[in-house]
Amino acid sequence: MPEDKILPLDKMFHPKSIAVVGASSSTKEIGWVKRLLDFGYKGEIYPINPKVKEIQGLKAYATICDVPAPIDYAILNVPARSTLQALRDCVAKGVKFVHCYTAGFGEDGSEEGKRLESEMTKMISGRRTRLLGPNCMGIYCPESGMTFSEDFPKAEGRIAVVSQSGAEASRLVLLCRDVNLYFSKVISYGNAADLDAPDFLEYLAQDKQTDIIALYVEGVKNGSTFMSAVRKCRAKKPVIILRAGTTENGARAALYHTASVTWSQETWKGVFKQTGAIPALTTDETADIIQGLTRIRKIFGQRVAIIGRGGGIGVVATDICERAGLKVPPFSQETQAKLREIKPDAGAGLRNPVEPKMGMEGATEFYLRGLPIIDADSETDIILIQMAVDIYGGGDADLRQTLTESAYALCAAADSIKKPVAVAIFTGGRPETVLAAAAARDILTKAGIAVFSGVESAARAIARIPITKS
Amino acid sequence: MPEDKILPLDKMFHPKSIAVVGASSSTKEIGWVKRLLDFGYKGEIYPINPKVKEIQGLKAYATICDVPAPIDYAILNVPARSTLQALRDCVAKGVKFVHCYTAGFGEDGSEEGKRLESEMTKMISGRRTRLLGPNCMGIYCPESGMTFSEDFPKAEGRIAVVSQSGAEASRLVLLCRDVNLYFSKVISYGNAADLDAPDFLEYLAQDKQTDIIALYVEGVKNGSTFMSAVRKCRAKKPVIILRAGTTENGARAALYHTASVTWSQETWKGVFKQTGAIPALTTDETADIIQGLTRIRKIFGQRVAIIGRGGGIGVVATDICERAGLKVPPFSQETQAKLREIKPDAGAGLRNPVEPKMGMEGATEFYLRGLPIIDADSETDIILIQMAVDIYGGGDADLRQTLTESAYALCAAADSIKKPVAVAIFTGGRPETVLAAAAARDILTKAGIAVFSGVESAARAIARIPITKS
Repeated sequence: MPEDKILPLDKMFHPKSIAVVGASSSTKEIGWVKRLLDFGYKGEIYPINPKVKEIQGLKAYATICDVPAPIDYAILNVPARSTLQALRDCVAKGVKFVHCYTAGFGEDGSEEGKRLESEMTKMISGRRTRLLGPNCMGIYCPESGMTFSEDFPKAEGRIAVVSQSGAEASRLVLLCRDVNLYFSKVISYGNAADLDAPDFLEYLAQDKQTDIIALYVEGVKNGSTFMSAVRKCRAKKPVIILRAGTTENGARAALYHTASVTWSQETWKGVFKQTGAIPALTTDETADIIQGLTRIRKIFGQRVAIIGRGGGIGVVATDICERAGLKVPPFSQETQAKLREIKPDAGAGLRNPVEPKMGMEGATEFYLRGLPIIDADSETDIILIQMAVDIYGGGDADLRQTLTESAYALCAAADSIKKPVAVAIFTGGRPETVLAAAAARDILTKAGIAVFSGVESAARAIARIPITKS
Repeated sequence: MPEDKILPLDKMFHPKSIAVVGASSSTKEIGWVKRLLDFGYKGEIYPINPKVKEIQGLKAYATICDVPAPIDYAILNVPARSTLQALRDCVAKGVKFVHCYTAGFGEDGSEEGKRLESEMTKMISGRRTRLLGPNCMGIYCPESGMTFSEDFPKAEGRIAVVSQSGAEASRLVLLCRDVNLYFSKVISYGNAADLDAPDFLEYLAQDKQTDIIALYVEGVKNGSTFMSAVRKCRAKKPVIILRAGTTENGARAALYHTASVTWSQETWKGVFKQTGAIPALTTDETADIIQGLTRIRKIFGQRVAIIGRGGGIGVVATDICERAGLKVPPFSQETQAKLREIKPDAGAGLRNPVEPKMGMEGATEFYLRGLPIIDADSETDIILIQMAVDIYGGGDADLRQTLTESAYALCAAADSIKKPVAVAIFTGGRPETVLAAAAARDILTKAGIAVFSGVESAARAIARIPITKS
């Protein structure tokens, strides 16, 4: 059985040759050809542009039919009115996948746009050529060197994104990059005139490079196909769905974005119940859940031990966790007694939340001596460490050094205990504080510890991690 | 009528003399005496410490009774077991306000702590001396040079905070400072053994330096007194209440933080309904609402025009606004026609949300040409500008320059239109992007434009601004 039949979309992520129809001859802008070259795509690139002989040192062809070699993947970067001819040429040439970057089709709101889009669908019907888009950014696959943004990391990871929006996909990739999380395959698929979410899900369910799948969906064309594809994925790996256009005017905006007819919040509720997919409402939340799934992994319950900043900040953190569906119960008497031994200060902070000695120095010491005690506590399942660096007093050099030491101490401590550890670093907006915190975040995330931008983010991500039965 | 009778708490914010009982003689730590000196307190400071002759160049006294001058305000920084004697001395000396910084009283959970606290209350009953605390940080009043943190700004502003938690008050002060918002008076009052929220509200309702009041409350001792004080304030200025300890374990944490018995979420619902106070659940939300009230001021309706990043990001932004209770309706046909004239690109983005030309450069041009068109739109009340700098492509020097230019263009444009303008700058976690955005935020906020850290923050703040009847 040829490889194509096993994973029919494989050539879309690993094409041996790419034609760019309407390749830009500008030397100022970064066009598709230069982007692929810069990003390290190793296959053949064929610029198609009848007006020039060469683009980025590569021979240019007048039409795709002039290329004297087979083409696996073509990017259409021509005006909407010229796409039909370009697509016709691709079909004639036997191109396997056509990515139509161009916008101005069904989402345009005009009759002409709708007509063009339905013509495209008709044109490939029953042919070997499959269409990605129109009105989309296409593929990012660091393994093969394909990308739609020069800002994306070249590092490979194990997260896949299936998104109707290129901008939302980009935001997700960059948010994850900021916490050292990387991707296997990202697909921006726009109006879905041919290839649609279920096709990508089918592939990603089987993809050995992918552990987690995140979807950004505005509209679903065939509900039962979609549901069955999500269920098939869910049997093998977690699926997060960011559904957009669930409000009155959100739905209107989606209609003019990807010509999608959206589902209501109620319908989606049913989908999540029936498929076991994880719901998300914003991109940041999606990134937080991805991090939770990747780095916290197994939790055996939702009882949280909060370490760091007691007082009012601890009370508010407790409220936030409990509102998110988690529990912050008091530690066992045994745990409290052991904590009292290492922390004889007056005042609150032994019961949960626990307050290490004031300041970050106290925190560092506590990670080493206190974490093993809380690890043994019978009443809690996961440890959430709150670094409230926004109200840290002291100089900036001091803050950076203390935070760095603290982060290394925490890595060592977390490594030697059994319970999962998550960190919430709230910085506020002061640049110096943000920079110091970013350095600590980098140390922690590289050691595989989940770092969130606050207790709200951490709590909503933890609440979405499926509970492992012990 | 003596001044004291008009505003009896005035001397608490503007004492002519402060005694620090248990003044630290350490030269390493920043104690209360050094903090007051550094912050610019201009009155007399009397360190009380029987073991040394001098602290920070000031003569030290063995007891407060030895000070040969009247004392308006005393800070008790002695162990819990010594506070009764110290307070007795203060009462004998006729000190007007005693701030008991020391913790280890009712919140301690022990019988001894409760007994000590009730002894303190008894000791001042019927006397001229009033007690602030115990277990609290006291007063921050930049006008008089009083502070409980050396990190607080010396700049004066028009916001007052009444908080049972010193850490929450600090977080709020610093979050507001990050967007150039400053304070008139901040009170951290802890266990409220004597002076309580209603006393401060009574004062702040009349305070000519204060426009907005934010409360952090764990427990209310006398419900009807509290409600009546909030109502009295509300008649004159907005009151925001961040209520903590409203969940099961949040309530438990509050009990051990300030010995407070908290109200349920249901009870609070009634309070907000009856008083017209504005509810908040986290410190960031409180800071966002403060900024909304200060900088957006009058809105005549809740219909939002969203500018910047259409596509999926616009769809999600629309959903976020509508879920927060706002509306994002389509612009009038007239507005859409006028926008089409200045923005002839294909694709979506003329209807609301509106997408300026790709990239930040397009945004800058749009602020100048498009904002007046949207200002005249009949369907929207407030303009929300989304700067999605997290997915900006291009170099960092470029980003900083473009963002700065964009910010100045927006200041000019916003100044010449009638509708209120709010900005959401979402950065992600990349340090370079955060720094560039911080510079733009500084320009905008100094020009009086509200800047939020994302559409979620902006939407929840806008939704809390009372609608002005036109």
